[in-house]
Amino acid sequence: MEQLKSFEKLVEQIKKLPGVGTKSAERMAYSIIEWNEDEILNFVNAIKNAKERIHKCPICGIFTENDKCEVCSSSTRDNTKLMVVCTQKDALAFEQTETFNGLYHVLGGVLSIQKGISYEQLSIDSLIQRIQTGSIKEVILATEPTIEGETTAQFIAKLLEKYDISISRLGYGLPMGGHLDYADSLTLSKSLEGRTKIK
Amino acid sequence: MEQLKSFEKLVEQIKKLPGVGTKSAERMAYSIIEWNEDEILNFVNAIKNAKERIHKCPICGIFTENDKCEVCSSSTRDNTKLMVVCTQKDALAFEQTETFNGLYHVLGGVLSIQKGISYEQLSIDSLIQRIQTGSIKEVILATEPTIEGETTAQFIAKLLEKYDISISRLGYGLPMGGHLDYADSLTLSKSLEGRTKIK
Repeated sequence: MEQLKSFEKLVEQIKKLPGVGTKSAERMAYSIIEWNEDEILNFVNAIKNAKERIHKCPICGIFTENDKCEVCSSSTRDNTKLMVVCTQKDALAFEQTETFNGLYHVLGGVLSIQKGISYEQLSIDSLIQRIQTGSIKEVILATEPTIEGETTAQFIAKLLEKYDISISRLGYGLPMGGHLDYADSLTLSKSLEGRTKIK
Repeated sequence: MEQLKSFEKLVEQIKKLPGVGTKSAERMAYSIIEWNEDEILNFVNAIKNAKERIHKCPICGIFTENDKCEVCSSSTRDNTKLMVVCTQKDALAFEQTETFNGLYHVLGGVLSIQKGISYEQLSIDSLIQRIQTGSIKEVILATEPTIEGETTAQFIAKLLEKYDISISRLGYGLPMGGHLDYADSLTLSKSLEGRTKIK
């Protein structure tokens, strides 16, 4: 019994989703072809709508459906504090702790020789611009607690050295090698409280 | 930071896939909105194509892109043996062992009071019809090794009692409570070899 071509292609596409292997992708594909027309339409439209409406905030890089993201357009946020994160998910994880009221800057990843991600592919230039022109007094480097995240933080700290701002790194307490957005709120809060000053 | 509506809807849709919780669905949704237009199009088209082209074989219920499935339209299969399985995936798992050369019949599930799945929702009538009109001499009940799968096998065995055919159940060796399509090929082969005669 040969696999069907259109089925194989579907499995191949589903495997592009993060954390999905062949077995899971096959289960999902079987599930999808059992859906009725309406269910298929809802699924496909949800993807298309999300892609159409969501874009990155031109200031900080957080996903938004508006001109600016909710954080950047808020008047109640402390615009002297800037938290630099790798991804939107990490910013969201901190929002859920309700312990940070400053602004965010999403880098879009970490520096990585292995994955070939260099300085130019991250939003570092726009970060420097924000510091040069903005009201920021403190930068909190909240990159992932991994070797690459640490390297990225050190790299940015070095670049920001010449500006008259305080720079800190998230306090450890975060398990090394873990994903930031899988940590619980308490751990995240503690790591914010115990942030260590770099400069 | 409020979640975006179109993002929430996407997460909700992704959670309809089997085995996907909120955290995983969010990761997948973030991944999807980072895809470029072409990647989105490929993904959506794969779903649409699979849904459009794949339907159930009118004889056995196996998914196919043609009038009949590959097994039912083959001239080299032993049409005296019929394996009754719950799902297409289970049939495929047996195909991969290369130890069964008969035909299949996909029930589409198991009898379950809990999930409200009764006799009428499974392809049992069409199974009886195949036995009444076909060349089948032996039916192998290969339902899942769970209480519900066992009940379904017993129920079908009772219905087929009056026909002049031999009926068997998969030999145990399969771990109880497991999913048939997650078992390795050797275990599946062993369970086929050691099938026990019911009648």
